[in-house]
Amino acid sequence: MTTGSKISLIMAILVATFPAFGATDEHPKLIMTKAGVERIRAELGSVPLFDATVATVKAEVDAEIELGIDTPIPLDYSGGYTHERHKRNFFVAQKAGALYQILEDKKYANYVRDMLFQYEAMYKDLPLHPKTRSYARGKLFWQCLNDSNWLVYMSQAYDAIYDYLSADERQQLEENLFRPFADHISVDSPQFFNRVHNHSTWGNAAVGMIGLVMGDDELVERALYGIPFGEIDTAAKDNDGGFIFDKDGRAGFLANLDDPFSPDGYYTEGPYYQRYAMYPFLIFAQALDNVKPDLNVLKHKDGVLLKAVDALLALSDADGEFFPLNDGQKGMSYQTGALVTAVDIAYHVGEQDPRLLSVAEEQGRVLLDDAGFSVAQAVRDDKARPFEKRSVNLSDGPDGKQGGVALLRSGNEDLTLVFKYSAQGLSHGHYDKLSFSLFERGDEVLQDYGLVRFVNIEQKGGGNYLKENSTWAKQTIAHNTLVQNETSHFGGKYEIGSQHHSELYFYDDTNSDVQVVSATESNAYPGTYMRRTMALIRDESFEKPFMLDLLKVQSDKANQYDLPFYFMGQAMQVNFDYEAPATLNPLGGKNGYQHLYVEGKGRPSSGSTQFLWMDNGRFYSLTSAAQENDDVMFTRIGANDPEFNLRRDAALMIRRKNTRDTVFASVVEAHGSYSPVSELALNTNSNISALEVAHDDDRYTAVLITEVNDQASLFILSNKDASKSTKHRLKIGNKTYRWKGPYLYTEE
Amino acid sequence: MTTGSKISLIMAILVATFPAFGATDEHPKLIMTKAGVERIRAELGSVPLFDATVATVKAEVDAEIELGIDTPIPLDYSGGYTHERHKRNFFVAQKAGALYQILEDKKYANYVRDMLFQYEAMYKDLPLHPKTRSYARGKLFWQCLNDSNWLVYMSQAYDAIYDYLSADERQQLEENLFRPFADHISVDSPQFFNRVHNHSTWGNAAVGMIGLVMGDDELVERALYGIPFGEIDTAAKDNDGGFIFDKDGRAGFLANLDDPFSPDGYYTEGPYYQRYAMYPFLIFAQALDNVKPDLNVLKHKDGVLLKAVDALLALSDADGEFFPLNDGQKGMSYQTGALVTAVDIAYHVGEQDPRLLSVAEEQGRVLLDDAGFSVAQAVRDDKARPFEKRSVNLSDGPDGKQGGVALLRSGNEDLTLVFKYSAQGLSHGHYDKLSFSLFERGDEVLQDYGLVRFVNIEQKGGGNYLKENSTWAKQTIAHNTLVQNETSHFGGKYEIGSQHHSELYFYDDTNSDVQVVSATESNAYPGTYMRRTMALIRDESFEKPFMLDLLKVQSDKANQYDLPFYFMGQAMQVNFDYEAPATLNPLGGKNGYQHLYVEGKGRPSSGSTQFLWMDNGRFYSLTSAAQENDDVMFTRIGANDPEFNLRRDAALMIRRKNTRDTVFASVVEAHGSYSPVSELALNTNSNISALEVAHDDDRYTAVLITEVNDQASLFILSNKDASKSTKHRLKIGNKTYRWKGPYLYTEE
Repeated sequence: MTTGSKISLIMAILVATFPAFGATDEHPKLIMTKAGVERIRAELGSVPLFDATVATVKAEVDAEIELGIDTPIPLDYSGGYTHERHKRNFFVAQKAGALYQILEDKKYANYVRDMLFQYEAMYKDLPLHPKTRSYARGKLFWQCLNDSNWLVYMSQAYDAIYDYLSADERQQLEENLFRPFADHISVDSPQFFNRVHNHSTWGNAAVGMIGLVMGDDELVERALYGIPFGEIDTAAKDNDGGFIFDKDGRAGFLANLDDPFSPDGYYTEGPYYQRYAMYPFLIFAQALDNVKPDLNVLKHKDGVLLKAVDALLALSDADGEFFPLNDGQKGMSYQTGALVTAVDIAYHVGEQDPRLLSVAEEQGRVLLDDAGFSVAQAVRDDKARPFEKRSVNLSDGPDGKQGGVALLRSGNEDLTLVFKYSAQGLSHGHYDKLSFSLFERGDEVLQDYGLVRFVNIEQKGGGNYLKENSTWAKQTIAHNTLVQNETSHFGGKYEIGSQHHSELYFYDDTNSDVQVVSATESNAYPGTYMRRTMALIRDESFEKPFMLDLLKVQSDKANQYDLPFYFMGQAMQVNFDYEAPATLNPLGGKNGYQHLYVEGKGRPSSGSTQFLWMDNGRFYSLTSAAQENDDVMFTRIGANDPEFNLRRDAALMIRRKNTRDTVFASVVEAHGSYSPVSELALNTNSNISALEVAHDDDRYTAVLITEVNDQASLFILSNKDASKSTKHRLKIGNKTYRWKGPYLYTEE
Repeated sequence: MTTGSKISLIMAILVATFPAFGATDEHPKLIMTKAGVERIRAELGSVPLFDATVATVKAEVDAEIELGIDTPIPLDYSGGYTHERHKRNFFVAQKAGALYQILEDKKYANYVRDMLFQYEAMYKDLPLHPKTRSYARGKLFWQCLNDSNWLVYMSQAYDAIYDYLSADERQQLEENLFRPFADHISVDSPQFFNRVHNHSTWGNAAVGMIGLVMGDDELVERALYGIPFGEIDTAAKDNDGGFIFDKDGRAGFLANLDDPFSPDGYYTEGPYYQRYAMYPFLIFAQALDNVKPDLNVLKHKDGVLLKAVDALLALSDADGEFFPLNDGQKGMSYQTGALVTAVDIAYHVGEQDPRLLSVAEEQGRVLLDDAGFSVAQAVRDDKARPFEKRSVNLSDGPDGKQGGVALLRSGNEDLTLVFKYSAQGLSHGHYDKLSFSLFERGDEVLQDYGLVRFVNIEQKGGGNYLKENSTWAKQTIAHNTLVQNETSHFGGKYEIGSQHHSELYFYDDTNSDVQVVSATESNAYPGTYMRRTMALIRDESFEKPFMLDLLKVQSDKANQYDLPFYFMGQAMQVNFDYEAPATLNPLGGKNGYQHLYVEGKGRPSSGSTQFLWMDNGRFYSLTSAAQENDDVMFTRIGANDPEFNLRRDAALMIRRKNTRDTVFASVVEAHGSYSPVSELALNTNSNISALEVAHDDDRYTAVLITEVNDQASLFILSNKDASKSTKHRLKIGNKTYRWKGPYLYTEE
């Protein structure tokens, strides 16, 4: 009995045992269906977005066919030739398969067949990839992750030409290539396959999708539920420093769907990795929805997969670029192919949300499958509606109880505040509890550094994480949040950080003029309690909305506190004296401080420290309530960076020494404009003359904002009670304030 | 007899004496004519570009009328309220006048009239402006220059409503406002008015234009020929450090037209100031052309004014931004109003070059006058043709004999080399003989720093030149050229620099695959002779064109030579070892070196120094023929810059010590791409494995470029003979090369 016959037998038994299995035996079945393909062929030429994509893809695939097929012996890390060639192969094969179905031109089927047989001929005797850096080495690529990418795409290509191949051809491919390939990334690599981690999602989807095409339900089972756990080292870590196995022993696609997504669809690693992970989730879910509809995978966890698409789109700036929370490479946007997939599938299998269509229009292309065709048809039929991004609070954690990320947006995304009070974010998490970044339209005003990696650029460490990612980017001081005694949150220890998360105090975006989020962190520094309250306030006496930042710290001992603001652009003016050293020295020796030069150091000259800068033709002012002994420092990234892996960006940093309890209160205004063409400088000055903490005790903290015209406004926070219905009364000076709910913003 | 009567009498005598004077007595006459206005009114509503401009301007002026007129007592420098308000007033008044003529709505005439009478009431008793920084203080503004701007625009406004006013009203305005205003900026301020300098051009145009409107030929004469020189201090300097009076005693508009423009239309201060100066030149020239056609001012010096418009457009990058030669603020582009004027007038009064129309289309607006209407009509009638910028060599100096600026462009402006071998450039000149900058499309690859000034931004020194403009931006080390013994060219002395210019050796763009410019400088460092030869070469074995840089130095003594390359973007890789200090120290103490930190210092590891960087999603490689004892340094701007006036940009610098004669040979390649969305890195490596000086003597210098595939090509320069017809023969190794003309580029 051949292996193929054995599989057929097992299959027959499975189908008999579980009737839902093997529900359809037509091909294609994964992301294209027989019915879908017929619809596409019938309307081809009358659906502009789809037709345009067909034309683009056809030109690309034709050029590759012209070049000929190359399946080189694997040698390189990402960025190198063999890596990039194999990667390109699976992308092109998937597209060629789709073109075969749409255009019914055999040259595309032949191309896929020939490529698969070249792989088949090679794979049988292929040893592990020669590069040894990965905790789970692949065969075509240096890590199983990339092998899984290959199989996710090749499954679709194989599905598309399945009926074009003879039974013998199929058997040969399945026995010599697909089955051993699936085994290598699963049973032979449990440390890769059996995790709750985006790597495993790819592995699960790869094994599941080829299982669906082959009608191999054993593989599908393995994909959905993982390999039964035997004896495993649950303390093992991968080469990013993350734990390998889930402590509750869960694995497989459904576990991966449960765990990293919160009920709101936030993916705990952050949007950059969510974008990467969405593709296998959605493509496999769509395939399961077609082939095993009874599994109802799209309804799993209250439809979390489709919520995740919404969350991911919400996590992008006005240009569609994802906020670089945790390890995120800046510039990644919803223009990426994974988001074309996400948007098209979410539209197709979801509620046909017409706002998704306007994103699809911006993307300018669709999937060459049933989902893409639905989107293109709807766009043609003028169903698209604007995708207006609103303020939203996204919970983190499988149950939504591990903090979250709040996005406060003023109208039209003029200002967007990204406030992070989440869980650690697995191995790609940074140590930056209660940190924030601020955007005006698509531009960073106060930045989150992002990662230290030049993804896929071989010259920079093979395109992998650089050591400054650990020594700088992950450290707390690399973020706009509080650092105590020059140490990172949780001592920069993953094991500790993973056990904790910040707690939401309240989130309220009901008043679009005063939107507030407040959260608490009490584990980052044992014995120290931090509550940060951030608001976007639109006040008619200001040109644009401003951001209020109120950070209350209480500790059981005296500490040194550092609060940096990583501004983008050109420093223009300050209202205090400082010394600028002729020689630049690192600010410290570790925890990220070794990477900061001090370019200036001074003391506040008045009760408010004010700093003006300019970027992208706009002005920004930071005004902070100052204490006499504060150090105000200009820092610049770049010390101890011999290979120029870091950007030379700057911060203004407030240092408060020998302090137990304190409040940092700041306002960031956006104002004015400058054009190098008209050379007109408008509204270049801050509208604020003074900022002071007008009251602070256990129950209330109040900030008084005085404008240059001597008008003033007051923000009072209730420190003990976030209920919307509680009534408060507070006397400050001669005046008594009465209000309901956790905060008051009022004219003075 | 009143002053008015006296003027009328003088006028009558003048008209009798010079029949050409007073040729037209209709109004408007300057930039609108009675006939032109009739044409405009007849076609209004059917000329989209003009109609759109009318709508925009109407909205702007209506809003100003709504706000009311404010003519505050002068107090501020530029950036301050009174300065900006008076500046806005003259812009708006000019526009309101045009609207009155076009729309025949009296509210616009009334607005201009009321504003003029507010000025009339104020001006009579107005003392000098209270700010004392200028060498020629104005009354409404801190410098006569801005007062002149006011009068150039107000003349047009007055012209537009001239017929609307009564004779008494006109007399009152002319006696109390315009005539004393014109006198203040001319006879009362000869140090401003009688120069050959862009300041004076504004003064000349202002006095001349109001003279034309008033029919006051004495003023027109004064504008054209200056005030007769009496006893003046010819050694006087202005507050930029430039000489005040022309050594040959010339003055007035025609002298200003003769002197700073070369026969090719290059303006010796550079494009940033040319753009500023073009407005008064062209607006006054157009007015003269209308009122005094016999003067034939547009034909003056072989039509230099219209050539200057072409030259100015050629001096912009692919985005229309001017190359920042000398003191130029980056970002200024042909979108500026002065260039709308230039393009419209050049089209209208010139040869109706249809390429200008495509620039006008990009500008999206036209002048509200006869010229603008011509352009808008022609655009409507589909006459626009693409403005393809080509390679061009622009001579400098009144006779075109003081060096020049060469622009080498590969097809479609993929690469543009800006090579400067010009004269000093008056008081706005930098000390950077034989320097260059390189652009890919609209992006800087190797930058010219530009100026240190934040024009009109009050927070930065009132918007004026900052001291780092002298200590950094003007210094030689701030540029991509050779510095000897850490001193600037001509010792950084304006008096010396002004006496010299580089000499063109040859310029040849006839072969679009190998475009070459070569120039010589022998005065920057007495005793040292430099010849720099730069080529843009398109070779099919390279992905994109590359730049070859061949700098031959001969000196009568041993020197230290520094050659910096101010790259833009992220350092990626080098092929040599270097030390990166933990502490950053300034590289030197003066001549700009005090502003440079050393971030790395090493020695070449091979015969070629190679450096790879990335910017804007593209890769660049610099490969230089190295000598064993070269220091290779990474420098960064920013030392001794306590107020953050400088950008923290970087350079790779080659230092060759204790050397008399040498050759610096380098190639800069542009290659590959990176997208943060696709995360694909393509062609990230240099195509060059080695670069060496294969031959060097008095007669020939040859550079051998070896590619990674071991193919090689050779560039040979004839050092003694630039004739295109001379035949050459040179033996290098075993091989003899024969060619004709100053250079050979050949496969090896």
